[in-house]
Amino acid sequence: MDSIPSGLNPDFELARCIDHTLLTPTAGLQEYRVQAREAARTRVAAFCVPPFMVAEVAPILKGTKTVTQTVIGFPLGFHTIGTKVFEAREAAAAGAGEIDMVVNRAYIRTGRMDRMAAEIQAVVQAVAPLPVKTILEISDLTMDEILASASAAVLAGAAMIKTSTGFFGEGAKLDVVRRLRDHLGPKVGIKASGGIRDLDQAWAFIQAGATRVGASRGLQIMAVFEGGAALW
Amino acid sequence: MDSIPSGLNPDFELARCIDHTLLTPTAGLQEYRVQAREAARTRVAAFCVPPFMVAEVAPILKGTKTVTQTVIGFPLGFHTIGTKVFEAREAAAAGAGEIDMVVNRAYIRTGRMDRMAAEIQAVVQAVAPLPVKTILEISDLTMDEILASASAAVLAGAAMIKTSTGFFGEGAKLDVVRRLRDHLGPKVGIKASGGIRDLDQAWAFIQAGATRVGASRGLQIMAVFEGGAALW
Repeated sequence: MDSIPSGLNPDFELARCIDHTLLTPTAGLQEYRVQAREAARTRVAAFCVPPFMVAEVAPILKGTKTVTQTVIGFPLGFHTIGTKVFEAREAAAAGAGEIDMVVNRAYIRTGRMDRMAAEIQAVVQAVAPLPVKTILEISDLTMDEILASASAAVLAGAAMIKTSTGFFGEGAKLDVVRRLRDHLGPKVGIKASGGIRDLDQAWAFIQAGATRVGASRGLQIMAVFEGGAALW
Repeated sequence: MDSIPSGLNPDFELARCIDHTLLTPTAGLQEYRVQAREAARTRVAAFCVPPFMVAEVAPILKGTKTVTQTVIGFPLGFHTIGTKVFEAREAAAAGAGEIDMVVNRAYIRTGRMDRMAAEIQAVVQAVAPLPVKTILEISDLTMDEILASASAAVLAGAAMIKTSTGFFGEGAKLDVVRRLRDHLGPKVGIKASGGIRDLDQAWAFIQAGATRVGASRGLQIMAVFEGGAALW
């Protein structure tokens, strides 16, 4: 898809909804540097990088509109609370401005929502006032599990609910984002991520209720929008 | 495959080569408990569980022939050295007897073998004298990268080279295990893992030079062997 979806106006601040993402485990420092500069130029909301790259990317993004974002307990979420807290604190100290944390889905599946919440609370407190997004990895959860864990996460201090890691399963789904928006009300942030590859899809998720879209093709999506916006 | 491969004798201590593995992110405490008891009964070398389950499983396996094993920086390996050391130390304190650590493949890909080695060394020192296996995730590395990183890992103190996480790519390959065995000589442990689903495959990897086989079907593989051994 290389054209502008209908309903998307050139003055819509699309960049503020895009988390450009580079989480390829073999990607080297140069790729992060180049993409960080381009992310800053396009003013996307965030550039999401692995924990070991936060210290390299944060100085490049400092003073720009683009936040350095990283992932905690990623992508399986089955680490200890202690490790998640340590990892998040280290990321904050290295210059991360946003934290995307994978929740422990064993707790969701076995009905231990209290433990899931305790873990989120611990990470939220460890990095306050930085916003923490909680990644549910919706693909192997039921709709009931998704809604129950999302509201528990918000009550535990999560700033935003994120659908997927992008590494497993089907990724983001429009109907889940719509249900989450209905369920959580208008104020909670929702980040759709996983399998969103073009501007058409990104815009569809924003219309469904997502306030952010995470995509490893975030810069390409911006390029299509900017190219189209220039023609308007 | 439900029969005994030719060349496998009933007195071969197969159990000592098997790391039974349960790393499903939604699995609950009961599943770990049941499988831990069965792992101990079959005397497999290890039961590999997520970090957050080490403290639950270690007391069950205490005093048995089966070691509690866990995974560090799993499965992407792109955490900071600090987080990997913290996670490994916590696992050791909680009763893990073996540590399977994912190396940082960005360092391999960009020729920073010194950094990869420094990370391994830090984890090895943090948990000494526990043996540390290094997971290379061979599926997206070239044969040259695999051999170079394997010898660097051994020099940095790794007790064993492990092929794959089982979460991405093709998993273990017979030709890679053969090449690793030639390259590393007879003394270094090699763990084949990823996609090994039956006794036939497990035995093929052992014949190719693996000293351990990691499998989420480890208990089923043992059941087939025990059933066959009973008929001999």
